[in-house]
Amino acid sequence: MTKVVKIGGNVLDDEAALKQFCRDFAALEGPKVLVHGGGALASRMQERLGQKPVKIQGRRVTDPDTLQVVTMVYAGWCNKQLVSLLQACGCNALGLSGCDGNAVWARRRPPLEIDGTPVDFGAVGDVTPASVNRPFLEVLLGQGIVPVLSPINHDGEGNLLNTNADTVAASVASALGAELWTCFEKEGVLADIHDPSSVIPRLTEASFRALKEAGKIADGMVPKLENAFRALRQGAARAVILGAACLKEGKGTEVVL
Amino acid sequence: MTKVVKIGGNVLDDEAALKQFCRDFAALEGPKVLVHGGGALASRMQERLGQKPVKIQGRRVTDPDTLQVVTMVYAGWCNKQLVSLLQACGCNALGLSGCDGNAVWARRRPPLEIDGTPVDFGAVGDVTPASVNRPFLEVLLGQGIVPVLSPINHDGEGNLLNTNADTVAASVASALGAELWTCFEKEGVLADIHDPSSVIPRLTEASFRALKEAGKIADGMVPKLENAFRALRQGAARAVILGAACLKEGKGTEVVL
Repeated sequence: MTKVVKIGGNVLDDEAALKQFCRDFAALEGPKVLVHGGGALASRMQERLGQKPVKIQGRRVTDPDTLQVVTMVYAGWCNKQLVSLLQACGCNALGLSGCDGNAVWARRRPPLEIDGTPVDFGAVGDVTPASVNRPFLEVLLGQGIVPVLSPINHDGEGNLLNTNADTVAASVASALGAELWTCFEKEGVLADIHDPSSVIPRLTEASFRALKEAGKIADGMVPKLENAFRALRQGAARAVILGAACLKEGKGTEVVL
Repeated sequence: MTKVVKIGGNVLDDEAALKQFCRDFAALEGPKVLVHGGGALASRMQERLGQKPVKIQGRRVTDPDTLQVVTMVYAGWCNKQLVSLLQACGCNALGLSGCDGNAVWARRRPPLEIDGTPVDFGAVGDVTPASVNRPFLEVLLGQGIVPVLSPINHDGEGNLLNTNADTVAASVASALGAELWTCFEKEGVLADIHDPSSVIPRLTEASFRALKEAGKIADGMVPKLENAFRALRQGAARAVILGAACLKEGKGTEVVL
């Protein structure tokens, strides 16, 4: 069963953690895909270039200058660092942005009405399982190649679009009927945010709704879980949320419908 | 016969020229590879980030900060812009840096003695035809995929290395027994630098040496021609130096041993 592993910026930001992650990921058996973000580094690079990162509802407003920075950071620095480290671990990684081999196509997000005002997110795209080039990814996987996907995708008309890496991972897992492994800094979804040992081993959608209502699951965890449930509904074989340092064991919070 | 086309930063820097180039390149028949640089943009980005670009004998000294910038600019922005524009022209482009699928391997350049002082170029690598992963590129070409190579390569031990795009193009053309088409801003090698119509249609190595002695061929043209002669000696089927705007006609200066 193919695994689609998503890592966030926190791993990319820590050289020792990144190297350990690459060793663990390279050791995972079977066909696999890696999807990465890099948002923290992109924000720092924007600030160094005198740009002010603007996020609305967690999504980066992507004007032309911002698009250049996120493309440089995600598709360039983060992607090639990961690929070269994986190659050094004997993993035949191949970095891809969506335009490469038309791997992932995205639709530019139309302006959204937020609090009565239309907000144009700029060069931001939305991705679905239907926009994933499954035959191309399967040819690569069949040759033992490990695709490493940056969240920079394209509209097929010559425009790059910034997309959400969690959504890319979920869409790829759904399109391939694969397992979705979402890594983050905790060891799984915590019943008590202050107790790292309170990992919930198995979380249904019904209990997620109840915990969300009760305010026990909040902030960044909510979209991660909604993403995992959507992936399962759209064809992913399994969804697990786990610590980047727990890849070897493959254990965290098993998300089930 | 496979064509390996090299374009320089001047095309990448001009949006209209870039789009025209992509249309012309997409229309070229048969298997093809594109190799690009991006040095001018990298230097501007370094300056915006408060770094001082240092070049010795035309080669950028690549300390860790510089490596990050050239990787962002070449492997990220330039590469993905080219690939998305080519995709929009119906050309199934796939962007690759050397680490991707281990496409091109490089050896870190040892410190060179220059004017009695050892100079460490940093993360700069040298590439030869033997460091090109010919079977991988041939599998891609056989599937109608058009590799678009950035000059960021790797040493196989997890380190990215900045290499010379002309040398990458020559090495790939030699390894594939392909035609090397080196594009630049003039329509070919000029007999008189002040007369754009004085394109030399056919240039042998002997006449090159004589013209160089006489000071008629100088500066940036010298390494470009030496590169073309080396490619021919190492197995390239043909070498031509032509204007980026002359791709359709495929005519410029035919370089012969």
